[in-house]
Amino acid sequence: MARYDFASDNTAPAAPEAMEAVLAANSGFTPGYGSDTVTARAADTVRAALDADAEVRFLASGTAANAISLATLCRPFEAVIAHEHAHICTDETGAPGFFGQGLGLIGLAGASGRLDPAALEGPLAAPDLAHRQSAAALSLTNATEYGTVYSVDALSALIAPAKAKGLGIHLDGARLANAAAAGFDLKAIGRLGVDILVLGGTKAGMSPTEAVAIFDRGLAHRFDARLKQAGQLPSKTRFYAAPFIGMLESGAFLRHAGHANAMARRLADAMPFPLRHPVEANAVFVEMDDARLSALHAAGWFVYRFLDGSVRFMCSWATTPEAVDELAEALRAIA
Amino acid sequence: MARYDFASDNTAPAAPEAMEAVLAANSGFTPGYGSDTVTARAADTVRAALDADAEVRFLASGTAANAISLATLCRPFEAVIAHEHAHICTDETGAPGFFGQGLGLIGLAGASGRLDPAALEGPLAAPDLAHRQSAAALSLTNATEYGTVYSVDALSALIAPAKAKGLGIHLDGARLANAAAAGFDLKAIGRLGVDILVLGGTKAGMSPTEAVAIFDRGLAHRFDARLKQAGQLPSKTRFYAAPFIGMLESGAFLRHAGHANAMARRLADAMPFPLRHPVEANAVFVEMDDARLSALHAAGWFVYRFLDGSVRFMCSWATTPEAVDELAEALRAIA
Amino acid sequence: MARYDFASDNTAPAAPEAMEAVLAANSGFTPGYGSDTVTARAADTVRAALDADAEVRFLASGTAANAISLATLCRPFEAVIAHEHAHICTDETGAPGFFGQGLGLIGLAGASGRLDPAALEGPLAAPDLAHRQSAAALSLTNATEYGTVYSVDALSALIAPAKAKGLGIHLDGARLANAAAAGFDLKAIGRLGVDILVLGGTKAGMSPTEAVAIFDRGLAHRFDARLKQAGQLPSKTRFYAAPFIGMLESGAFLRHAGHANAMARRLADAMPFPLRHPVEANAVFVEMDDARLSALHAAGWFVYRFLDGSVRFMCSWATTPEAVDELAEALRAIA
Amino acid sequence: MARYDFASDNTAPAAPEAMEAVLAANSGFTPGYGSDTVTARAADTVRAALDADAEVRFLASGTAANAISLATLCRPFEAVIAHEHAHICTDETGAPGFFGQGLGLIGLAGASGRLDPAALEGPLAAPDLAHRQSAAALSLTNATEYGTVYSVDALSALIAPAKAKGLGIHLDGARLANAAAAGFDLKAIGRLGVDILVLGGTKAGMSPTEAVAIFDRGLAHRFDARLKQAGQLPSKTRFYAAPFIGMLESGAFLRHAGHANAMARRLADAMPFPLRHPVEANAVFVEMDDARLSALHAAGWFVYRFLDGSVRFMCSWATTPEAVDELAEALRAIA
Repeated sequence: MARYDFASDNTAPAAPEAMEAVLAANSGFTPGYGSDTVTARAADTVRAALDADAEVRFLASGTAANAISLATLCRPFEAVIAHEHAHICTDETGAPGFFGQGLGLIGLAGASGRLDPAALEGPLAAPDLAHRQSAAALSLTNATEYGTVYSVDALSALIAPAKAKGLGIHLDGARLANAAAAGFDLKAIGRLGVDILVLGGTKAGMSPTEAVAIFDRGLAHRFDARLKQAGQLPSKTRFYAAPFIGMLESGAFLRHAGHANAMARRLADAMPFPLRHPVEANAVFVEMDDARLSALHAAGWFVYRFLDGSVRFMCSWATTPEAVDELAEALRAIA
Repeated sequence: MARYDFASDNTAPAAPEAMEAVLAANSGFTPGYGSDTVTARAADTVRAALDADAEVRFLASGTAANAISLATLCRPFEAVIAHEHAHICTDETGAPGFFGQGLGLIGLAGASGRLDPAALEGPLAAPDLAHRQSAAALSLTNATEYGTVYSVDALSALIAPAKAKGLGIHLDGARLANAAAAGFDLKAIGRLGVDILVLGGTKAGMSPTEAVAIFDRGLAHRFDARLKQAGQLPSKTRFYAAPFIGMLESGAFLRHAGHANAMARRLADAMPFPLRHPVEANAVFVEMDDARLSALHAAGWFVYRFLDGSVRFMCSWATTPEAVDELAEALRAIA
Repeated sequence: MARYDFASDNTAPAAPEAMEAVLAANSGFTPGYGSDTVTARAADTVRAALDADAEVRFLASGTAANAISLATLCRPFEAVIAHEHAHICTDETGAPGFFGQGLGLIGLAGASGRLDPAALEGPLAAPDLAHRQSAAALSLTNATEYGTVYSVDALSALIAPAKAKGLGIHLDGARLANAAAAGFDLKAIGRLGVDILVLGGTKAGMSPTEAVAIFDRGLAHRFDARLKQAGQLPSKTRFYAAPFIGMLESGAFLRHAGHANAMARRLADAMPFPLRHPVEANAVFVEMDDARLSALHAAGWFVYRFLDGSVRFMCSWATTPEAVDELAEALRAIA
Repeated sequence: MARYDFASDNTAPAAPEAMEAVLAANSGFTPGYGSDTVTARAADTVRAALDADAEVRFLASGTAANAISLATLCRPFEAVIAHEHAHICTDETGAPGFFGQGLGLIGLAGASGRLDPAALEGPLAAPDLAHRQSAAALSLTNATEYGTVYSVDALSALIAPAKAKGLGIHLDGARLANAAAAGFDLKAIGRLGVDILVLGGTKAGMSPTEAVAIFDRGLAHRFDARLKQAGQLPSKTRFYAAPFIGMLESGAFLRHAGHANAMARRLADAMPFPLRHPVEANAVFVEMDDARLSALHAAGWFVYRFLDGSVRFMCSWATTPEAVDELAEALRAIA
């Protein structure tokens, strides 16, 4: 049986702090659909972490959370600007178009998963034409798909011109914990003008859950009906809310992410293959040919070749130094 | 703080057998998206319970599970026949139309939530006309919204003529556990010609999860892609699979449902208000005017007035005899 | 070969004034997609007829025009209030749900196709609930499906409370010409607060075309992109614009509709069967059993039994007094 | 006022043969929605031209015709393979995703608008993965967007491997007349395994109309309901059917297309700018810098810079040799 430790950060189990909060919440009768006290407390906790008076909801799926956010910001005949390798563009089976009734994606190139403000200029300056989907939203990801981290200033340099053109701003924070552990200030998100944030729980070490924070409350009108119709308004919401209580209130959210980042650093330092991207969060991407990747698989370590041709190693809260060292040894053996 | 014991069967916590299975599954690294051994075992368990070689998936949402099933059976310009008060018609914010791109619902009347074969005749005989959505599927619910239970023969009398006309068959089993505990044979479902079953976990006392069983495997082509696009292919699937292991393998699935049904019977027997519907599963519907409902709310018991004007009391695995007796006393005080 | 004179008002050919305008416009090279001078002139003509500074577009399909209008006013998890027998509810194969990604329809009863303000009160007062589609728009039809005509005051009594609740207003004017010929003031529509009007061309005697007038110009943002994506932005727009020039500038629009109304009156006066609805526009609905309807069909006159069980006779610009008299004689023969 | 002669082939008026057929059809009362004798005759005429027993419908919009065809061949979580500059990918505002509820487009590069069989190999060999939209259809265009023409053999080399993988085949024939006039055999289409053809009328010189021919009749089940829901089942169908009678029965369809092709050849021969693509149908693409394009616009000739950076000149049935010569002179003046 292959080892999936480094295949993704969602191959790990949920962290004890998350599970304990779930168990604590699993007591007594409560009203459903988000109106219970556990959910209220979790929303408060998220708002405190963001230092923002946002509407907060808890969803089962990050794919749905992203797609619903984009459908909230764009109409079907409009488009979202994103990095061409953003999760919404490459890994969600067209979910934005499904939830958004055909909304378009404008994928831009950008080194190591980050967009450059210069690359935005063309799309933002493009005239509205009836025969194509004009941009109505900008979607950013932090930490990025390639394990790099936007600084607050870097995000600001992208968001400001997009807002000036009237675009809505979506932040895919599936790995926001890792960005935060790398120094990104969560409290800056609202001030930057992000309209909707998806704050990842699953990859941060929780049982399945994602928080959606709507900073522009005008966008939240009938949002529960939107969620219900889209199959994302849980009846037993406490199961999706509690992990955020357990992880945020205890500090485990940042602590675990910091650990994951440190494990990626440890792996990068021991890596015998050339690094493809800067290691700033919990991912290590390297250049490795097919023969060596097959050898690694044969050695029992399952990892993926990624869209840019490199091979990806993900670390999580559950990655142990020992596992990193074992993997590094296996890598040296095939290098 | 009002008591929600009887407001719904999803106000209860998850049962110990479900949670223990979740905790047991929450160990070690596993591949995601349904390819782990926990999920494989849970699918086997469901197949064994159904005595059928069905494709089985685990989803977070019953609303999504129903809507995706219907979208699998119908095209947008077709329609689903269902009871006019079926959950898909009245409580899912138009989810079938959202997932099914506008697919139609043909709601039929029927006593106490059950359809009568005679009522099907008209819709099944209706000619195909371009200006309306012709029926392509029949959706049935067992136990029904009104707490009644179809026998195998009763379902057969509905399914056979629909299949003869080429319709696909969807069974909403959000409360199938309660039907089974009332004597309905789960192993008959596949033989009856059901194409897709949604086997409820949440209302049966699990943490959020629903199993989808696809009996007609031709319908399962690229089903995982369908789920992923719709935000219903969890990465950490074990959290949705494990509760079925815990509940089905231990027998708790039926045992808890039997308890819930017994609590409804206990409440019905003590009920000072006229029963509106036969009490065959875990629900009690009674005739109660607004003044008395307000008095009940004021006494701290939250329950809903339902679509047919009656007041609903739901029991669950967690309903205690003491709570039933306390409620009955409160009811007598206002009767 | 059966006679279709009275089967619908779309069985007639296009009137000479429409065709001459098409032929006149069919000359020389023009830019496409609505940017030609013919289309500009037609839009001016419609604006003049409405006495309103509206955005005007010309579409091929009334079904699409209605559905696109509703999708502009409602989000998928919202609903449109309409008469239960409105064309959008009964004759468009679920087009509103298709274009509106599952948007809901709340059908209300109302005598002879008209809504009563009292019937609106319940839906307008209904609380927003996450599990159902709350109303975001009101759709009205004038002349109605049953050949009755709303007065300006009657429309105002429906529109005012709906606007007060924030609903958008759609007016299906497939037969607005007939309403206008019956005394309804086209110039009142904008003042009444209608947001989007579909002004019918086809049933008014044109070659296929419908004008959409958007009174609330905020709704027109990127409307051409919306139309293009939905297959309703013609390249050779002049073919859809010219008929409005030919019919409106010549006065034939009202004149032909007045003729159609007069023919309906002539038929009603000679009708040996009981009238089901007031004859106020170009339709006559009567009570007739199946045997007599079959006899009428056998006599060579094709007409439809309608949703309310009555039999419908439609008149158009092309209906001749002689045809009415022949039909009346045939009706007397079977009465 | 700028001249639009060469801006597109839809800036031309409709040809006399089309208009005369429309006028001839505009007589008497007929049943609607495709059940009239004009439409039946036009469908027969199309079948004869294709030498195939296909279902034939007449739609108002080529964008809708393409998108509906693709939605018939693909489910939302699947994708269409097409040239990256195919009309469906670049000029239809995401219509395939709108009509197809988010279906994906896999755009492939290919010289001068044609796909190469080698480029298909990768996508056809790609494994089904849940997180991306796997190909379910191949869309081809003849003549292509760049005015080149596939031979029957060239199409066969693309269609055969796609069919072998189970893909459906769509042929966008907006300019099929031009391909046919260049030697492509219309009667080969069905034998090649095309499932759905959109046979262009508008760009071939008709008033707005497109024929859809469904060779695989299993795909035609409830197709009229599909069209009606999508706003593409005209009531007065004869207006969309008649032009095909007028153009096909008279031979004008091929004759006019041959003329357009000859005009493009004449322009190419006189062209002072380098040709970018082979001139095989009715388009001429040239390399021209912005200053010269501006000068051309200033000289009163409106044409577009295209997606590949070249400047496009389109000819139509209405293009005169004199206009070509005038344009050529204007081009020489700025070259």
